[in-house]
Amino acid sequence: MAHPVDAGIEDEAVPTASGSDHPRRPWRAYFEASFGFRNHWYPAFFSGQLAEGECRGQVMLGERILFKRIEGRVYAIEDRCVHRGVPFSVRPECYTKNTISCWYHGFTYDVRTGALVAIITDPESPLIGKVRLKSYPVEEHKNLVFAFIGDEAPPPLVLDLQPGFLDEELAIYPNGEHEIVKSNWRLAAENGVDASHVYIHRNSALINAARRPLPLSSYFTTREGMVIDQDGAPKGVVKGAGRRTSVWETEIEGVKVTSQYRPGINTDQSNVTNTSLWLPCGLKVDPFPRPDTMQFEWYVPHDEQSHHYIVTWGKRVKNEYESQQFFREMEVIWKELVVHRFNNEDVIAREAMEHFYASEDGWNQEQLYRPDMVIAEWRRLASKHNRGIQHQPGPKARV
Amino acid sequence: MAHPVDAGIEDEAVPTASGSDHPRRPWRAYFEASFGFRNHWYPAFFSGQLAEGECRGQVMLGERILFKRIEGRVYAIEDRCVHRGVPFSVRPECYTKNTISCWYHGFTYDVRTGALVAIITDPESPLIGKVRLKSYPVEEHKNLVFAFIGDEAPPPLVLDLQPGFLDEELAIYPNGEHEIVKSNWRLAAENGVDASHVYIHRNSALINAARRPLPLSSYFTTREGMVIDQDGAPKGVVKGAGRRTSVWETEIEGVKVTSQYRPGINTDQSNVTNTSLWLPCGLKVDPFPRPDTMQFEWYVPHDEQSHHYIVTWGKRVKNEYESQQFFREMEVIWKELVVHRFNNEDVIAREAMEHFYASEDGWNQEQLYRPDMVIAEWRRLASKHNRGIQHQPGPKARV
Amino acid sequence: MAHPVDAGIEDEAVPTASGSDHPRRPWRAYFEASFGFRNHWYPAFFSGQLAEGECRGQVMLGERILFKRIEGRVYAIEDRCVHRGVPFSVRPECYTKNTISCWYHGFTYDVRTGALVAIITDPESPLIGKVRLKSYPVEEHKNLVFAFIGDEAPPPLVLDLQPGFLDEELAIYPNGEHEIVKSNWRLAAENGVDASHVYIHRNSALINAARRPLPLSSYFTTREGMVIDQDGAPKGVVKGAGRRTSVWETEIEGVKVTSQYRPGINTDQSNVTNTSLWLPCGLKVDPFPRPDTMQFEWYVPHDEQSHHYIVTWGKRVKNEYESQQFFREMEVIWKELVVHRFNNEDVIAREAMEHFYASEDGWNQEQLYRPDMVIAEWRRLASKHNRGIQHQPGPKARV
Repeated sequence: MAHPVDAGIEDEAVPTASGSDHPRRPWRAYFEASFGFRNHWYPAFFSGQLAEGECRGQVMLGERILFKRIEGRVYAIEDRCVHRGVPFSVRPECYTKNTISCWYHGFTYDVRTGALVAIITDPESPLIGKVRLKSYPVEEHKNLVFAFIGDEAPPPLVLDLQPGFLDEELAIYPNGEHEIVKSNWRLAAENGVDASHVYIHRNSALINAARRPLPLSSYFTTREGMVIDQDGAPKGVVKGAGRRTSVWETEIEGVKVTSQYRPGINTDQSNVTNTSLWLPCGLKVDPFPRPDTMQFEWYVPHDEQSHHYIVTWGKRVKNEYESQQFFREMEVIWKELVVHRFNNEDVIAREAMEHFYASEDGWNQEQLYRPDMVIAEWRRLASKHNRGIQHQPGPKARV
Repeated sequence: MAHPVDAGIEDEAVPTASGSDHPRRPWRAYFEASFGFRNHWYPAFFSGQLAEGECRGQVMLGERILFKRIEGRVYAIEDRCVHRGVPFSVRPECYTKNTISCWYHGFTYDVRTGALVAIITDPESPLIGKVRLKSYPVEEHKNLVFAFIGDEAPPPLVLDLQPGFLDEELAIYPNGEHEIVKSNWRLAAENGVDASHVYIHRNSALINAARRPLPLSSYFTTREGMVIDQDGAPKGVVKGAGRRTSVWETEIEGVKVTSQYRPGINTDQSNVTNTSLWLPCGLKVDPFPRPDTMQFEWYVPHDEQSHHYIVTWGKRVKNEYESQQFFREMEVIWKELVVHRFNNEDVIAREAMEHFYASEDGWNQEQLYRPDMVIAEWRRLASKHNRGIQHQPGPKARV
Repeated sequence: MAHPVDAGIEDEAVPTASGSDHPRRPWRAYFEASFGFRNHWYPAFFSGQLAEGECRGQVMLGERILFKRIEGRVYAIEDRCVHRGVPFSVRPECYTKNTISCWYHGFTYDVRTGALVAIITDPESPLIGKVRLKSYPVEEHKNLVFAFIGDEAPPPLVLDLQPGFLDEELAIYPNGEHEIVKSNWRLAAENGVDASHVYIHRNSALINAARRPLPLSSYFTTREGMVIDQDGAPKGVVKGAGRRTSVWETEIEGVKVTSQYRPGINTDQSNVTNTSLWLPCGLKVDPFPRPDTMQFEWYVPHDEQSHHYIVTWGKRVKNEYESQQFFREMEVIWKELVVHRFNNEDVIAREAMEHFYASEDGWNQEQLYRPDMVIAEWRRLASKHNRGIQHQPGPKARV
């Protein structure tokens, strides 16, 4: 391998054993997962985006999915009629509570099961009762709707979520942000957990408004505590455990480059933000943006070149009143500052990497460095603990 | 084959003989014809779109073609200079009646033959008289200009037209509609002859305006009379012969779904519309939209992802006065109602199928049902009676 | 080969020796050079486009390059951070005179050498001093900045320039035109030197304004003096040496086609414009547009489908006063007339060829004719004297 090596990162990546067919073999599964990992739970949208009786179509991991809310519960099936493949969501049409009928020829499915229960244009068709669309397991918690994309029996949702997200006392802001961002989901996930990317936020309005101390960089030199992979629990990597190295000042050609707002003394370890990234694609930043709230993000694969970026916040509350107060404060004060004037820097960074990784062999040409240890650990963890690689969806899944 | 089978359609498609290399072998030629069928006549444009002495460029089956009207007659040649391949139609330039000169270097062709007759920038060139562009046989009838795309000697135009179109007493409306629609031509043709797609028109303004009885579906359960393939005559499939099954009402989860406007008794067979589809790509709907007019449509392959959709109407008339009255009525009353408020539903349906068939292996993944028998017959007929498959046009045809 | 042959062009192209694996073997290298030729100097931009301390990113031959001016001198390195491949030019950031820092993680490079000299987010990184971006040799003369794209030691710039361009007494207009044109660079170069393409300019405002005599065509029938390929000097082809054939009139079907403005007698050889094309991609038109000025053009490969078109003018002057007067006159009178109302015809022609050459096998399907002898010679010369073929840039160059 011709790469100059940053000891500690590259050593990780390159197995010494002969017989390796790829210089970065422990990450191979991850490198293949341009459409994401199969057999995992993913957030689809916020609860408020789907009212009783309504339908919505959405692409996840390249699959076209139709959601409908029936008696409060959300169900999901392929958004693609078995007959000629048109999406129901082009012109959603429901004659009854439990069904959707294709607007083209009236193929009618029970959205709870995917079963073809009627064909309006051929009521006696022998296909009725025999054909079935793929249906997706769905769960709804904390104002978010989750779908399981895969073929296996779904594990408990909690295994695919950032720890604590489902805790009873945690109120989740129901009106978070979501947008399609033009980069592969992995670039987004890696930027999320990137130990030293704090540097891109140095001029963010959020920092300036609060005159908030922010180091130029903050990372860990030991992998102790970095990887969380106990059986029967979410798998993730944590930035924020262990001994932290923070950079407040550096020098270039004799010119000092310093953090804009610095604390009187060096960083107060007790007040440090912990960031962690969890399979399949969820981030947790705790605390952020306030000492008593935490931020949750997801980078759901949309297609090979883009991901669905979902952001919201949580806070431990004692009662409904505190909940409502928290929601109001997020709405009025924080949403704009965090999403549009802070996270936006991350969106720019993810999109700026896309060309290199998509067209210039970036996965093999990149040069990681010491603060990327958490990224290297994430890739290793993801390669090892994912439940399958999603391939270009094309042929219709048959059940 | 893993598909659930709708008896009567799938049985047709799957030959029982061993040795079949494709489950839908009788349709193989059709499945390959993404650019259309070669050695057929196709309508190009309405006569009124090309005045005396004028030129127009058009893409048909992926080929770039230049048309010019000379002393009333329309001729067609490649729209691509033999020298460096630029289209004449970028800047059409005619110094004389019979010729077009390339605006780039003055290569001048007789549009009647394709022969290079002069080069303005090299009048003594040895190429003159030796080089020839492909020329296309052209015929003009009933206010439409037709071109023959192929290499063989063209058969009579009448063999590639909907029967009756050239009948002397048939007046054809000269100002029909035409647009490029973003779906492969086959999806358009199949939607045209689709027995049960009437369902998509149930809310059309045309139906509502007339409170016109329209079943939810109407199809045939026997192939008797469905296929027209006598020697020396147009080849097509007919929807409208034989015993018709009409669906006026069906039930989903106990909820009745009924046709919006129903006749007192069941459908009056004597007043039924017959729809038929003819090689290479012409539809006839008779009568429609009025009891004494018929509708003609064509889905001319443009490129792999789009077709040129042409629509007009015909009526049997006794004299010029009746003709003019018919034209006026189409213009004032019917054109908007039919084209923009009825056929538009078909355009949406064709485009909604494109993704599945182009990117998700739809030709092999689709699940036809009983009313699609006419589509299955069309595919079989087209596979058997086409005169050649058009492949991606690239290299220039040399004569 | 099925092509009708225009003696003198095709004979050149087709080697009689057996063993030829391509009918146009002497041009093979040229036909492969869709991204241009490697190991040559190319103009990048005008000096005035980069002030002291500023940065600009530009794509040349498919490579992303960052330029910075330091103490008056321009340097160039890859515009792609070694770490994760983002372009510096997305958000250029310079803490010191000699460096650029990546806006993402603060990787800081000496722009003079490409060396990684600091990492703001990991000041002690072992990568510092060990990693280096590709740096590009740069020269700046006559208000233009040139970069050497390649791996070899660069030859003197003068070898890759139109002869005379660097002459001391030649003032070069500093505010020339530049735009991205949507055609491959070779189509542009060939149109530039095309002997008979003068035909497309026959209705140009420049010609009409001056009532300037302009033949329909003007070309050479002998290759004597056409090819300039002495050792140690620029390599090019010249249109304008030898005996010229000018066409002022021709006839089509008995109709006379004549030049709009003709001199009383035939062309005055002493006042004829000489056009020449030089490796790698520079044109010289002398004199033009006035008897005492010459025009310089470049068609720098941008990517496979487009080139960077750069135009300016030169005049021999005695002092600064004459220079300024010349610049003023170009600015006020000529720039608009020449660039937007004359050269624009060339832009249309280049773009009109692109489809044929890119998608219809135009390089093998074209039919050259006698006036194209200079193009044939150019292809032969370029195939023989280029210093390497640029391939699709992808993997990062490592130093």
